[in-house]
Amino acid sequence: MQPAEIVYLNGDFVKKGEACLSPFDRGFLFAQAAYEVTAVFGGELIDFKAHLARLVRTLDGIEIPSAEVCKSLHDLHLDLLARNQVSEGFVYLQITGGAYGKRDFAGPETLLPGLFMFCEARNLIGERARDGVASITIEDQRWKRRDYKTTQLLSQALAYREAERAGAFGAIMQEDGFVTEAASANLWVVLDKGRLVTRNLGREILPGITRQSVLAHLKREGMQVEERAITIDELGAANEIFTTSATGLVLPVVELDHKPVGSGKPGPVTRRVQEVYYRGIGADIAARAPWLTGT
Amino acid sequence: MQPAEIVYLNGDFVKKGEACLSPFDRGFLFAQAAYEVTAVFGGELIDFKAHLARLVRTLDGIEIPSAEVCKSLHDLHLDLLARNQVSEGFVYLQITGGAYGKRDFAGPETLLPGLFMFCEARNLIGERARDGVASITIEDQRWKRRDYKTTQLLSQALAYREAERAGAFGAIMQEDGFVTEAASANLWVVLDKGRLVTRNLGREILPGITRQSVLAHLKREGMQVEERAITIDELGAANEIFTTSATGLVLPVVELDHKPVGSGKPGPVTRRVQEVYYRGIGADIAARAPWLTGT
Repeated sequence: MQPAEIVYLNGDFVKKGEACLSPFDRGFLFAQAAYEVTAVFGGELIDFKAHLARLVRTLDGIEIPSAEVCKSLHDLHLDLLARNQVSEGFVYLQITGGAYGKRDFAGPETLLPGLFMFCEARNLIGERARDGVASITIEDQRWKRRDYKTTQLLSQALAYREAERAGAFGAIMQEDGFVTEAASANLWVVLDKGRLVTRNLGREILPGITRQSVLAHLKREGMQVEERAITIDELGAANEIFTTSATGLVLPVVELDHKPVGSGKPGPVTRRVQEVYYRGIGADIAARAPWLTGT
Repeated sequence: MQPAEIVYLNGDFVKKGEACLSPFDRGFLFAQAAYEVTAVFGGELIDFKAHLARLVRTLDGIEIPSAEVCKSLHDLHLDLLARNQVSEGFVYLQITGGAYGKRDFAGPETLLPGLFMFCEARNLIGERARDGVASITIEDQRWKRRDYKTTQLLSQALAYREAERAGAFGAIMQEDGFVTEAASANLWVVLDKGRLVTRNLGREILPGITRQSVLAHLKREGMQVEERAITIDELGAANEIFTTSATGLVLPVVELDHKPVGSGKPGPVTRRVQEVYYRGIGADIAARAPWLTGT
């Protein structure tokens, strides 16, 4: 999949091949940048307000003024989607510490943010959601403020490369005997008696917007979720594993480190969560996820 | 201080205001980039071979092919310096995972590196070396592979911003009761009886080239150095503190968290290390560091 042709960079809509960023941008030199990825389904931005709130929190945490740059974001999302005629997929945005023609760790007292956006058409409820994916486990090597959504993504990029070499789709990160999350998604496990567990929020993981939305939907359905750290042993013994993220929505993990998870097929709890979430974003289940109609 | 007018980006020498980077560069999206800063003194690159060796090690660690891009680096350094008529200062280089017009964590199996370079004229033996600097202490929040010199520098950028607000020049990072290093330099302390200590190499700190060079010079002079982790208490009780880095060379830290270090002036061991290192890079001590001539 490729980004749509028109991107937005620092005030202008331009063709993606002509977008011109200064190499002195603090996002490039110091990874001083926040990002968000918002799902687009049925022409609508999913959970935009929640993405915006998390973005503001990250920007505050990494000292990039948020007020001015965030004002026009909603309109820019819609404009970008319209220009590219995308109605299902996602919008990516990155706000950086800006460019000043020099490299100076501190930078000016008040930063002037840079803004980059692109969108991409994607089938959000596709084969991966139907069949599940394979994953590997790796060490979590990230910095200590994973609750900020920044572009310090090197270890995640390396994790996905390692996964690909192992013939897997994704990676699940572990630290000190516990699972933190997947390389770009939150992690959920189904233990014995159908107990559904996902890690509690803290500096160790990203506060996922899809995670939060799924939690709210499940609560409305009367489904119980334990929010706590999951041990490596629990992960290995899980009956079902799935991830949540803005572009994957609810993805079953059916193979872990080359071994089947449970039956090796998406399990009943995962299917139920998919159904609840898909309905929540207004998807026509029969048309888009016919594999769920028997559940 | 400002970078010199001509920079190098992905094959071309261009004016710095005209350098045009793709926002899809993996250095910008994922911080998948290595960098080096090489000091230039008397028209010579200082310790270039050691910088190159460390660069190759980082590139290998972050899966960017090094062979082709590193071949021409020495000549590019000299060319860049000549075009900008810089004979004292530094050359900055950044090698990224390259740009592919899309955002995909894994990227192609074999990456095609991007290369950005600029140089800057700077007086390497100046007032800070003479008078020393103030520093604050902060928590080390970096990722777990600090032995790789990557652009995941957000916490260092934030550290320098915090230092500036505190009226200080730099920051010293601590973790689990021990000092790791300074925000962009290695750290040395002088304890009772003149014992000189700097942290041993490992994943916790950057293997500084100036650190390595200073160690070699001191050894030749018969000076003892302990390489081990320094506790926070030892830092607080140190008679002298100094940092080593490519652009700061040997910088006395004379104030820590608003309290004087030792006498509050650069101490005798620090002065001796400056003298040894400055002579090592061929500096005329009487002309460039007259404050050392009485030692």
